[in-house]
Amino acid sequence: MQRPQKYGESFSEWFSWIISEAEIYDYGRYPIKGTGIWLPYGFQIRRRVIELIRMLLDETGHEEILLPLLIPETLFAKESEHVRGFEGEVFWITKAGLEELDVKLALRPTSETTISYMESLWIKSYKQLPKKYYQIVSIFRYETKMTKPMIRVREVTTFKEAHTVHESFESSEEQIREAINIYAKFFDMLGIPYIVSRRPQWDKFAGAIYTIAFDTIFPDKRAVQIGTVHNLGQTFTKVFDVKIQKRDESIDYAWQTSYGISERVIASIIAFHSDEKGLILPPLVAPYQAVVIPIYQEDAKDMVIEYCNNVAKALRENGIRVYLDLRDDMRPAEKFFEWELKGVPLRIEVGVREITNNTVTVFRRDKVKREIVPAQQLVERVHVMLTEIAQALAARAWKELISNIRISKSIEEAAKILKELGGVVLMPWCGDERCVYSKMQGIEGVDVIGEVMEESLKKLNISLDLFKGTQCGFCNNQAKAVIAIAKKY
Amino acid sequence: MQRPQKYGESFSEWFSWIISEAEIYDYGRYPIKGTGIWLPYGFQIRRRVIELIRMLLDETGHEEILLPLLIPETLFAKESEHVRGFEGEVFWITKAGLEELDVKLALRPTSETTISYMESLWIKSYKQLPKKYYQIVSIFRYETKMTKPMIRVREVTTFKEAHTVHESFESSEEQIREAINIYAKFFDMLGIPYIVSRRPQWDKFAGAIYTIAFDTIFPDKRAVQIGTVHNLGQTFTKVFDVKIQKRDESIDYAWQTSYGISERVIASIIAFHSDEKGLILPPLVAPYQAVVIPIYQEDAKDMVIEYCNNVAKALRENGIRVYLDLRDDMRPAEKFFEWELKGVPLRIEVGVREITNNTVTVFRRDKVKREIVPAQQLVERVHVMLTEIAQALAARAWKELISNIRISKSIEEAAKILKELGGVVLMPWCGDERCVYSKMQGIEGVDVIGEVMEESLKKLNISLDLFKGTQCGFCNNQAKAVIAIAKKY
Repeated sequence: MQRPQKYGESFSEWFSWIISEAEIYDYGRYPIKGTGIWLPYGFQIRRRVIELIRMLLDETGHEEILLPLLIPETLFAKESEHVRGFEGEVFWITKAGLEELDVKLALRPTSETTISYMESLWIKSYKQLPKKYYQIVSIFRYETKMTKPMIRVREVTTFKEAHTVHESFESSEEQIREAINIYAKFFDMLGIPYIVSRRPQWDKFAGAIYTIAFDTIFPDKRAVQIGTVHNLGQTFTKVFDVKIQKRDESIDYAWQTSYGISERVIASIIAFHSDEKGLILPPLVAPYQAVVIPIYQEDAKDMVIEYCNNVAKALRENGIRVYLDLRDDMRPAEKFFEWELKGVPLRIEVGVREITNNTVTVFRRDKVKREIVPAQQLVERVHVMLTEIAQALAARAWKELISNIRISKSIEEAAKILKELGGVVLMPWCGDERCVYSKMQGIEGVDVIGEVMEESLKKLNISLDLFKGTQCGFCNNQAKAVIAIAKKY
Repeated sequence: MQRPQKYGESFSEWFSWIISEAEIYDYGRYPIKGTGIWLPYGFQIRRRVIELIRMLLDETGHEEILLPLLIPETLFAKESEHVRGFEGEVFWITKAGLEELDVKLALRPTSETTISYMESLWIKSYKQLPKKYYQIVSIFRYETKMTKPMIRVREVTTFKEAHTVHESFESSEEQIREAINIYAKFFDMLGIPYIVSRRPQWDKFAGAIYTIAFDTIFPDKRAVQIGTVHNLGQTFTKVFDVKIQKRDESIDYAWQTSYGISERVIASIIAFHSDEKGLILPPLVAPYQAVVIPIYQEDAKDMVIEYCNNVAKALRENGIRVYLDLRDDMRPAEKFFEWELKGVPLRIEVGVREITNNTVTVFRRDKVKREIVPAQQLVERVHVMLTEIAQALAARAWKELISNIRISKSIEEAAKILKELGGVVLMPWCGDERCVYSKMQGIEGVDVIGEVMEESLKKLNISLDLFKGTQCGFCNNQAKAVIAIAKKY
C-alpha cells in the first residue's frame, strides 16, 4: 500500500495506514462498526500511557476502583438531563440466556450514575472528604457520526474516568483546578499540545454545571477534544441521595466533579509524533526506547553479536528498554525500515567498524541523523538523547499547534479563515453565550470550542491584552474574554 | 456485625463478611445480581495479582492484546458445539440508541470466536508460529446458579484468557504443558494449593478436544475450579478458516489452545490466607507489606514520628511497600485491629522504648507474634520475614488441602465420605469414562473432578502405586489411573 500524505484531507487515510503498518490497532476488519483490536505493539504503548496517568492520579491521592459495566435502566434514567444527553447512544441488553430481562441494562457510556449510587452507601461525613476515585475501563457509545479508529469508536477501550466527592462547592472548584493541572502535566509529558477552554452551556456534559475541555488540532486542521473536566455540582448527589454530615453538623448533599480522557491521547501521540517515515514515539511510552541492530558479514557474526549483547545488557541495566534485533532472515536495511516506521526513538547500529573503534553508531529517529558515540559513554549519551527527543517532540508539536491558531476580529472573517485554512480561530468576546449562540446558527461546519482559559493563552504565547477592550467578534459590546472556534471532529 | 466462622457451612457468610470489612469488594448492594465493585484496597491486591500473571506470560513469549467486548451473533454461533455450551448464559444486546439491531450482539463469555476470526486475517504461515496471545478483561455469564462474590459472578472482572496458535498438534500439546507449568508457578507464588486433573469429556470446554483443570478446596470443603487449560484442536480454525502454509509447503488448518484464570484466584488467596482475625496477605500481592505505627504520649510525639519516618524511608528505599499510619484520630490498638483484618504481613511498632533501645518491634501477622529487631538490622530482617511468611502461608495452605483429600476404593464409600466430610476423594480408576458416567447418575451432590495428573499426585505426596493394579472404584476392571470426585461449587 502506498503511503498516504499525513497533512490535509488525506490524514484519515494516513492514520489508518500507520496504525495498521506499525501494528498498533487493527481497525475496520472486525465485523462490528467502530470497534478495533489493540495489537501487541500498540498494546504496549497503551499500557505505558495508562501507567503514566495512573502515576499522576495516585500521587495526587486518587484511588483506583472498578465499577460494574452494566447499569440498570432504572438507575441510568434517574437524572433526567443526563439520560437525555446519552439516550441516543446507549447499547441496551434486553436478553440474557433464553430470558427477556425485566429491566434492560445499559453498557456504561460513563459512570456518574453508578458511582453516585454507590457513594450514597459509602459516604456519610465530611471527614471522609474529599474523596477521589478513578477507573480505567471500556465505555460504549453508539456513535451515529462516521466512526474513526481511536478517535470516534463505539467501544472506547481506554477510558480513564475520575469521580470526586466534596464537602463544598469551593472544594469542588479546587478539584477542577487540580484536574486541569494533572491533565496539563500528562499531556506535557507526552508532548501533546492543547488549548484549554470552558465549553458553552449548550455543549457541556449532560448533568454538569460546566465543562472545561482540552482540545488539540490534528493534521487535517480539525480540532479534537482530548480531555474534559466537569463540575457536577449537586446534580447527581441530589438524585442519588448522597448526603453528608458537614463540619457544622448540618446535613447536606455532597458536591462532585468528574473528568475523563480516552485513547484519543494515543491518537494524538500518533498524529503529532510522526513524519513521512512513520512514528516517532515519546521515549516515556515507547515499548522499546532503543533497538540494537547487528551488521555483519558471516565471518564476523559471533563477534558482532557478542558486542551487541553487551551493549543491550549495559543499557538494560541502566533502565533503558532495549530490543536486540537478532532476526537473521532480514537484512539490516529492512530492520531499519521497520523500526523507523514503528517509531523507536533510538537505533543503535553495531558493525565491525564500531567494534574496532570501540564505538557504536546511534541513529536519532526524530532528527533522522546518525552520531558516533564512544562505547564507554553510551549509557549516559542515550539518557541525554532520550531526554532531548522528548523535548524536541514536544517543541515541534507546540509549534505545529500554534501555527494552526489564528486571531480574528469578527465571526465572518473567522469562518472564512476556518473554511480556507482550518485550525482554530481566537476572537475577542463579550462573554455572553447568547450572542454567540444566535450568530453561530447560520454558519455551517464551524463549532464553538469555548472560552479560552488565561493560563492556556499564556502557554500559547498569546496575550489577553490583544483582545481586551476591543469589540466582541459577534456583537458590538466590549470584549472581556477570548473565544475559540474551529471545525471540530 | 459479628464475625462468622470461616470453616464449615458458614464459609460463604464469612467470605462476605471479610471482603466487606477489609474493604476489598462491595458485593450484593449494586442493583444487578452477580456484580460487584472492587474497592481501593481490593483493587490494589487485584492489580498485583494481574502484574504477576502478566510477568509469567510475558517472560514465556505471550503477547498482550485487547479484543472487542461485543461479538455479533453470526460470529458467535459459527461453531455449533461452542454456542450450545454457552447460549444459556449469554447477555444479548438487541438495541442501540433508539434503533433495534439487525444482528444482536453478545457480551463475550470467552473470546475463542473473536480471536479465531482475527487470526484468519493475521496468520498465514508456520513461520509466524507458535503465536501466543492473551488479554485481561471482563467477561459476562448469565449464571443461573446461586451467585457468590468473586466465585460465581455475572461480570467476571478479572478474566485472563490466553489463546495460542500452532503448526501441529504436537506443538499444541507442548503448549498445554507450558500453560500447566505457568499456572502451577503462578499458584505456587501465591501459596494457593491445587489439584490438576483432566476433566471428563462431558465436562470439558465447549469446543475443546480436552480440558485440564486446576481445582482447590475451600473452607466449606467444596472443590472449586481455579484455572483451566484447553486443547482446542482444529475446532475453531476449521470453522473460521485459519489456514497456514506448513513447513512442507502444504496448506492446513492451524491448531489452537486456550487457557484462563479469573478472580477466583483472589477468592482463593482470601480463603486460604486468613484466620479468625482476618486476612494474611502473601507479601507478593499485599498493597502494603509493612505498616509502621507510632505509639506515643503527646510529649514524645515528634520524636516518635521522626523515628517512624526514618524507619519507613529505610524500608521504602529497599523496595518494601510501606504504609506509615499517622492518623491521629485513632488509638494504636484500633490501628492494630484494622491492619490485622486487612492482612498486612508485618506491623512495625515504634514507641519511646524502641527509640531508647534503638530497636523496633515487628509483629508477624501469620504467627500473631512480636519480635524485637535492632534498628540497623531491620531492612534485612524484614526481607527475611516476608520470605518466611510467603513460605509459611504456602505450607499451611498445602497442608490444609491435603487434609481434605481422602482415598477410597469404591464410589459408594467415597460418596459417604464426601457427604460427611466434604473435600476431595481419590479413587483407583480403569480409565473408562463410560463406567464413571453411568455410575454417577444415581449419586446426588457429588461431581467428577477428573483424572488426576501424575505430577499433581506427586505434589500431594501421594504415590500412584497406591492405586495401580487395584480394582476400579466404579467397575471391576483393573485400575490404570486415579480419579478425583468432590462436592463442587
